[in-house]
Amino acid sequence: MKDNIIKGCFLDSDSPDRIRVVENAFLPVIDGICRGIVPVIPEAYRGLPVTDYGDRLILPGMSDLHLHAPQFSFRGMGMDLELLDWLDTYTFPEEAKYSDPVYVEQAYGYFTDALVHSTTTRAAVFATIHPAATLDLMEQLERSGLQCFVGKVNMDRNCPDSVREPDVQSALRDTEAWIQAANSRFVRTKPILTPRFIPSCSDALMTGLKTLQTRYSLPLQSHLSENYGEIAWVRELSPAAKCYGDAYDRFGLFGGEHPCIMAHCVHSTDEELELIKRNGVYIAHSPESNMNLASGVAPVSRYLELGLRVGLATDVAGGSQISMLRAMMHAIQASKLRWRLLDDSIRPLSLEQAFYLATVGGGAFFGKVGRFAKGYDFDAVVLDDSSLSHPQPLDPRSRLERAVYLADDRHLFAKYVAGKKIF
Amino acid sequence: MKDNIIKGCFLDSDSPDRIRVVENAFLPVIDGICRGIVPVIPEAYRGLPVTDYGDRLILPGMSDLHLHAPQFSFRGMGMDLELLDWLDTYTFPEEAKYSDPVYVEQAYGYFTDALVHSTTTRAAVFATIHPAATLDLMEQLERSGLQCFVGKVNMDRNCPDSVREPDVQSALRDTEAWIQAANSRFVRTKPILTPRFIPSCSDALMTGLKTLQTRYSLPLQSHLSENYGEIAWVRELSPAAKCYGDAYDRFGLFGGEHPCIMAHCVHSTDEELELIKRNGVYIAHSPESNMNLASGVAPVSRYLELGLRVGLATDVAGGSQISMLRAMMHAIQASKLRWRLLDDSIRPLSLEQAFYLATVGGGAFFGKVGRFAKGYDFDAVVLDDSSLSHPQPLDPRSRLERAVYLADDRHLFAKYVAGKKIF
Repeated sequence: MKDNIIKGCFLDSDSPDRIRVVENAFLPVIDGICRGIVPVIPEAYRGLPVTDYGDRLILPGMSDLHLHAPQFSFRGMGMDLELLDWLDTYTFPEEAKYSDPVYVEQAYGYFTDALVHSTTTRAAVFATIHPAATLDLMEQLERSGLQCFVGKVNMDRNCPDSVREPDVQSALRDTEAWIQAANSRFVRTKPILTPRFIPSCSDALMTGLKTLQTRYSLPLQSHLSENYGEIAWVRELSPAAKCYGDAYDRFGLFGGEHPCIMAHCVHSTDEELELIKRNGVYIAHSPESNMNLASGVAPVSRYLELGLRVGLATDVAGGSQISMLRAMMHAIQASKLRWRLLDDSIRPLSLEQAFYLATVGGGAFFGKVGRFAKGYDFDAVVLDDSSLSHPQPLDPRSRLERAVYLADDRHLFAKYVAGKKIF
Repeated sequence: MKDNIIKGCFLDSDSPDRIRVVENAFLPVIDGICRGIVPVIPEAYRGLPVTDYGDRLILPGMSDLHLHAPQFSFRGMGMDLELLDWLDTYTFPEEAKYSDPVYVEQAYGYFTDALVHSTTTRAAVFATIHPAATLDLMEQLERSGLQCFVGKVNMDRNCPDSVREPDVQSALRDTEAWIQAANSRFVRTKPILTPRFIPSCSDALMTGLKTLQTRYSLPLQSHLSENYGEIAWVRELSPAAKCYGDAYDRFGLFGGEHPCIMAHCVHSTDEELELIKRNGVYIAHSPESNMNLASGVAPVSRYLELGLRVGLATDVAGGSQISMLRAMMHAIQASKLRWRLLDDSIRPLSLEQAFYLATVGGGAFFGKVGRFAKGYDFDAVVLDDSSLSHPQPLDPRSRLERAVYLADDRHLFAKYVAGKKIF
């Protein structure tokens, strides 16, 4: 990684309500860190090489707060069921295949390649229960230059044998060995505890995971309040919990000291939202998945108003699209239907808000990520939208909006993660 | 156009609830007409050349029942307003530019090129009020080999001067001259009467259009019951009409003898639906547009149950995507949110139903179009989805479902319209 100066048209998010546009500007990047966007090159950096992206759009790299690597292979298929039936019918049989190292190598290769050729620079990724397959995925992601948290999934109940850890002891032993292997082998790719969700994890397993969390100081990711059937099931399984979130919290596995991502939060009660806020839990808003599995639409603009930590997620393969641009599109579209069909007191998401979620909102989970402000990691994607022909010149904000709906991997011109050029 | 035999894996729609899959089969195409899919080449056709598409998917060409060519240039932009404000703020200023022939040639060139490189083989297209620009668009579409209805738009009230026809006489004179020019110049590209919608057309204009319809035996396209503000406005403007549809019907401009497409029908009352059924009006369901403009979701599976004529539409640029595959995706997604958020008595659309709408449902407006059954025009798109890598072999239906979510112009391998090979 060499210190250099990036020149071009920068867009980033000042706040949920404002996109900052700086054209023909310079961004010195020293040790992979942004030194602030400036109109002329400061004296101190005069000798550095300049990479000039001309009129192209330079956006912060995007953070995908929730997706399932083993589901990538069946994205866009089996879109005819709700969550619990979908898991049984499509997901678990597919995830069982990840005991086969040949299948793993190929399938995770496709996944990693697609993630590299997207606007995503950071991601929080579910693998499967298989330690070897999870390490293979981490190896591929490490080589890619992306910076990801990856979780070996834990499940020891209410699922087919093929995707169930045989007992609590072996589950915890496997998980600890995987954590140690990951910590020793990878720099950019970090382990994250990943109990699938309350229905698939026994109390003993959750207690053991808390011990591992404390021992290795690990973040955690799971699912929360996605679907009515799921929520009712959790109520049965955890009758003492005050809400679904509390079913994690009573094991100390719901944020607080250790960072935590909960995917969905479509149907979170006020009580649950308070707990989310108090514990600083990150909400991974997954709009396309919540459409495809007919789960509903999380009231995201309300979550932003409440000051909750919210990021955006593709949730492949509940979501079919690995593109965070398209996740922004789906977030805006779903919020409009929620406003029209369900509750017009909650405003639809603006482009500004969706852009904030995809960059700053999720980026915060990974550190100082998601902006070009001084001190932030230089995560960036450079879009060349010139092939999206238009008979008039367009301003940068309009070009960004259009990219959300229309740009794909063909329009990705360059990509940096923490200063490292990926392509 | 040469008689030949197409070989490959065919998928078409038997009914709204069934996709027919025929692998390794032959389809003789004589004079551009399908002679039926057969397992072996019949004696009578033994000498014909065979075009073998191997394992690729051969789908019926799709019919886009509603889109605006002049809006193509701003698709994916200005997605922050409801219909009436969106028209005033973005649409009318853009459409006004179509008085400039240089702008027209370029912008319609982009549009035509995109339509050619989509799965659409037939379309019902809105132009602008400008006769010369509309003929330019028709010229470009004619050269492309697609088969379209194109409408010079009529508007003589409630809109800015820049997009208003100056008076009824000149509007009708221009429209008649345009019809005559189109009829004399084009074979594949046909004129369709296009009063924009009730709010922008005076009674005198509508009466005159009826005269032209009778004189030239023309179909008609317009908008219906898209947005609450629009519907309330029509009620004010046409107090005698029993419903919005009746505001067209009292001029004889609502189906019956002459085919008619009404876009949207999101909020049609039972009375309006009865009129639609009685008059055989085609509903152009435009799911993405109805999300983007926060209009709502039409209850399409109910319309199918009622036996109404329904097709699918992209409604560019209320919709951002010109792809009918993606229109199918949006139709399914929107129907799931409608089911979850508004009314769970109306089932979400299945893949089968969405495929039916995109092929047979809309195709019927253009004749015997949208199937590979004997006697149907050979409209087809051949998809090569091999670059959508998958670690397992997939059955054709799964590949079709995946294409709905993931395929784009890169996956289009060949395209035929009425037997003519476009590429």
